[in-house]
Amino acid sequence: MEGIVFEEKDFFACCGSTRFAKKMASSAPFSTYDQAVDTAKDIWFNEVDVNGWLEAFAAHPQIGQSPSSHHKSPTSAEWSKGEQSTALATATDSTMEELADWNWRYQQKFGFVFLIFAFGRSSPEILAELKKRYQNRPLVEFEIAAGEQMKVTELRLAKLFSTKAEGASATNA
Amino acid sequence: MEGIVFEEKDFFACCGSTRFAKKMASSAPFSTYDQAVDTAKDIWFNEVDVNGWLEAFAAHPQIGQSPSSHHKSPTSAEWSKGEQSTALATATDSTMEELADWNWRYQQKFGFVFLIFAFGRSSPEILAELKKRYQNRPLVEFEIAAGEQMKVTELRLAKLFSTKAEGASATNA
Repeated sequence: MEGIVFEEKDFFACCGSTRFAKKMASSAPFSTYDQAVDTAKDIWFNEVDVNGWLEAFAAHPQIGQSPSSHHKSPTSAEWSKGEQSTALATATDSTMEELADWNWRYQQKFGFVFLIFAFGRSSPEILAELKKRYQNRPLVEFEIAAGEQMKVTELRLAKLFSTKAEGASATNA
Repeated sequence: MEGIVFEEKDFFACCGSTRFAKKMASSAPFSTYDQAVDTAKDIWFNEVDVNGWLEAFAAHPQIGQSPSSHHKSPTSAEWSKGEQSTALATATDSTMEELADWNWRYQQKFGFVFLIFAFGRSSPEILAELKKRYQNRPLVEFEIAAGEQMKVTELRLAKLFSTKAEGASATNA
């Protein structure tokens, strides 16, 4: 992992909390990817406050919606499309309509966007999960959403590391 | 409890979440005080979202600080002084200084004011509790603060009911 330079914006693309990105940047470099994930979990669950969680949630588009207008990070917008590719491929018009409707209800109840680690999940699966989670009380759902965010962050950290490693070996070649 | 008229602002003085006040007002009248408390608990823990919790926390002054500049509700400001009377009576200059310092650290870590059911508690007790709770992770502390808010709300509902009942019996006399 030596020779790989990370910037705050790299981590902000993984998780849209300013505090998270700053603390990750000041903890870098990492000797292994696993060490980066452990550090990320510690920062996310123990150091980022509830406002930071809401900030990170707000950086996500609604499931099924185009991310372009919501993302403060272009990298994050691109990754979001990839994470939702299975969902989009399995979506019918009526599923998409129902998803939009339940997303709206969810947002009204909880005050933040429905967040799910969508990678590899079909639209009907996501819709079923949304309906189930809608029943939760707000604090329970807040914690579940934070867990889903961490799964997204882990996947994105893996992408970040592989992209950076390729860049570093190309430079060294 | 018949003949007692409640308005949204009455409940807003008990708990500074707009959603809480609206839902309590639309649930009124209550046949007993206990029924009002049960309804309040249900609304606060199951229906008010995390933004509403933060809104209610923001309506509190820091422990030891004058509430006047923070309160959107004059009734709430007056009640807050009463709730802190033991703390203020037992405060020395150095305790107040230490409280201010730890309040600041708490606010930096958690993003909201330190909230405690202060009624009948001395300043050293409150300070010890603040230092202990400062160690918590943000979500745990968020839930504890919401529990303390509910205790404050209960006490204020009791005051509200007794004030209103006196007013109603004076009108009926």
